[in-house]
Amino acid sequence: MKMFKNRDIISMVDFSREEIDHILDVAERVEKDPTGCHDLLNNKILALLFFEPSTRTRMSFESAMYKLGGKCIDLGAIDASSLKKGESFTDTIKVISKYADLMVIRHPAEGAARYASEIVDIPVINGGDGTGQHPTQTLLDLFTLKKENKLERVNIGILGDLRYSRTVHSLVYALTLYNVDMTFIYPPSLRLPDWILEHLIKNDIRYKECNNIDEVIGDIDVLYITRIQKERFPDISEYYAVSDSYKVTKSLLVSKAKDDLILLHPLPKKNEIEKELDDTPYAKYFLQVEYGVYVRMALLGLIMGVFD
Amino acid sequence: MKMFKNRDIISMVDFSREEIDHILDVAERVEKDPTGCHDLLNNKILALLFFEPSTRTRMSFESAMYKLGGKCIDLGAIDASSLKKGESFTDTIKVISKYADLMVIRHPAEGAARYASEIVDIPVINGGDGTGQHPTQTLLDLFTLKKENKLERVNIGILGDLRYSRTVHSLVYALTLYNVDMTFIYPPSLRLPDWILEHLIKNDIRYKECNNIDEVIGDIDVLYITRIQKERFPDISEYYAVSDSYKVTKSLLVSKAKDDLILLHPLPKKNEIEKELDDTPYAKYFLQVEYGVYVRMALLGLIMGVFD
Amino acid sequence: MKMFKNRDIISMVDFSREEIDHILDVAERVEKDPTGCHDLLNNKILALLFFEPSTRTRMSFESAMYKLGGKCIDLGAIDASSLKKGESFTDTIKVISKYADLMVIRHPAEGAARYASEIVDIPVINGGDGTGQHPTQTLLDLFTLKKENKLERVNIGILGDLRYSRTVHSLVYALTLYNVDMTFIYPPSLRLPDWILEHLIKNDIRYKECNNIDEVIGDIDVLYITRIQKERFPDISEYYAVSDSYKVTKSLLVSKAKDDLILLHPLPKKNEIEKELDDTPYAKYFLQVEYGVYVRMALLGLIMGVFD
Repeated sequence: MKMFKNRDIISMVDFSREEIDHILDVAERVEKDPTGCHDLLNNKILALLFFEPSTRTRMSFESAMYKLGGKCIDLGAIDASSLKKGESFTDTIKVISKYADLMVIRHPAEGAARYASEIVDIPVINGGDGTGQHPTQTLLDLFTLKKENKLERVNIGILGDLRYSRTVHSLVYALTLYNVDMTFIYPPSLRLPDWILEHLIKNDIRYKECNNIDEVIGDIDVLYITRIQKERFPDISEYYAVSDSYKVTKSLLVSKAKDDLILLHPLPKKNEIEKELDDTPYAKYFLQVEYGVYVRMALLGLIMGVFD
Repeated sequence: MKMFKNRDIISMVDFSREEIDHILDVAERVEKDPTGCHDLLNNKILALLFFEPSTRTRMSFESAMYKLGGKCIDLGAIDASSLKKGESFTDTIKVISKYADLMVIRHPAEGAARYASEIVDIPVINGGDGTGQHPTQTLLDLFTLKKENKLERVNIGILGDLRYSRTVHSLVYALTLYNVDMTFIYPPSLRLPDWILEHLIKNDIRYKECNNIDEVIGDIDVLYITRIQKERFPDISEYYAVSDSYKVTKSLLVSKAKDDLILLHPLPKKNEIEKELDDTPYAKYFLQVEYGVYVRMALLGLIMGVFD
Repeated sequence: MKMFKNRDIISMVDFSREEIDHILDVAERVEKDPTGCHDLLNNKILALLFFEPSTRTRMSFESAMYKLGGKCIDLGAIDASSLKKGESFTDTIKVISKYADLMVIRHPAEGAARYASEIVDIPVINGGDGTGQHPTQTLLDLFTLKKENKLERVNIGILGDLRYSRTVHSLVYALTLYNVDMTFIYPPSLRLPDWILEHLIKNDIRYKECNNIDEVIGDIDVLYITRIQKERFPDISEYYAVSDSYKVTKSLLVSKAKDDLILLHPLPKKNEIEKELDDTPYAKYFLQVEYGVYVRMALLGLIMGVFD
């Protein structure tokens, strides 16, 4: 197992099953004793570079860093920054790396976080790169599945935009390391990219595809739902053709789903989940949010070398 | 007296006289020994959700939290947030409640903070809800009156927009718990809402109304001045009809006011107070700002359970 | 030597050679033992008031404050603030001074920081005032020169916009206190202001002026390059006449410059330095960024009275 100290967190592709399990174990330790973590990163500084808007990823990292005793500095909204003065992305990240001990970067271009990690001397965490990867989201998804005892010998349905969602790309890749079946449900135009499908086939992963959630809802143990993200569509008419094309309702689940089905969602959600479901035992998406803080605390601590 | 630990701070209507006095007592303790408070909220996180712009309320809370050793996370400007991605207000506050130990919320809609407090599991402080309430402003107003010995047996004049100002609504309500006379001075279209006038009558509060500050300036001990807030007027022509309709000048005060009259203002101010008054002993509005930090420290500490 | 405790940092004009050397000495102490500084400013609050956009100055101050254990509160983007509600600059800084222990202010108007220091009771650091001064940039420039052994008996070339650049104005003034020659290279319309040229003459400073870097590149030990700042030009056509009028290239340096020439730049840079130079030993501008944190730590600590 590679050491985590000073390591970049760019893509799930970089992690072995053993490494992921170790991160989840540390997250569980953190969850059991958050108070014991309070001074671990005193005076360490995390730089937040969000070249795309973010509420939850940004605030989750801030919360995690603060609970470890650390500090955050934020590049802030892009139009108020040096980029407006014509500075290159390379210069911006080089400069900010001098102010901090590690950085989280979100960027509309796939590969941006990887590029950043090659340029700067401090560890880089990918907070989402275009339609590429979003590894910390995947780690908290896996943590939730583990806590709910749904990470082995289950059928995981993934519903929505499988084409452009980086969250889905990261998650599906990671799930191939676990003993799960996968069921992909999507509007026809939003199928998984070929590189992932090929990866599934090459690794003999059992999966099924369909276009209608009603057909498969009775067979699955987990339903991972994604929002269709307007901002990812190169052609907006393609977006309007599929927006509001699916919705998970309480009546569907009550009539057809397994009793212990759980719903996950990376959030923000829009209309793809009926509001009435929020307060049912199916819904685990707000729990995911809570777990996300523990997972990010674990990662920050591992990278800074304060956890084994 | 209800305990303060984990309590929401939504409206002055929720507080008894005894409770308010207790908050003011704690604020006075904090003022006497701010250094003794330095570690009380170590690693506690305050979430700031300002759905309307704010400088002073936001920064005052940040300053208060930091002086207690705590941290803040800020939702930030609204257009950079998940709300832009179509997330509901309910989801946003639920998510952010997972990152923090308590939250301050400011919102253009009356009732928003109350609603939030019913949705989330952490304590909620109302930082101003539309034309509704602004309880922490009122508490600092009361603290200033107490420190200046003007909270009992005085005549308090309140000048300006009595109709839309939440600051005024909160304050007038709270003052009915104390033994004061009130004098309301306002442009005819900006009278107090009926519910407050009825409350005054029902509780036998002595008050007087007039439209011209010159008529009553000699009778009052405190003049609480408000800015006419353009953003609160449903009809902008109504705003232009009253803007600049009153101004408190040095010559007025020197010629007609009591020597120990004090001027309060929730700030920001515009032209309603002559600039020359800022450096006179009448002006207490910058002192209010200073006191606001102690009052908010007291509240944060009480809610988090570190003050008795 | 004037004491630094509670002192305003407005202009290099206010500092003696002895005082500057003392700041640089403290910065060197900080650089040697940053960990030893970790608790010096616990619970002290630095207010950031950037009335012009800033990435690096703002984040550098935040980083410096955090490394000393302190906290920061940020006025934030101007259009989200009370200024939008019509508040005067004077009121804004008075109010914010009640929330913090010291403040950094950047403003488009020359003299704004000096004005602020006369209004408020807490120390004020000038983070750049229009085309006026930028003293903390100059101090980090001097620190870099000192660390590189180029602060005495060298010829320092200064290239670019000498007319509007506050960075240049601050630096040239400060360099007159040291035993250096200066060479000014600039497009004809961007000569140094008369007051600085007169100051040079009065103090018998050896300097040379020219319009083409090629002519003098072989004679200089340091090349301080500035970007032409569009936002400083009263007349935009004047800007377009000079933009892209000079560029320092690797081939120029390899063929004509001294081997140990160093390049400095206040950043952000645009096209005035060929990208290929970034990874050569000439380039010291990212090192400047790093040194800037130590220099600002030294200043913050001196002003707060925790360094001798």
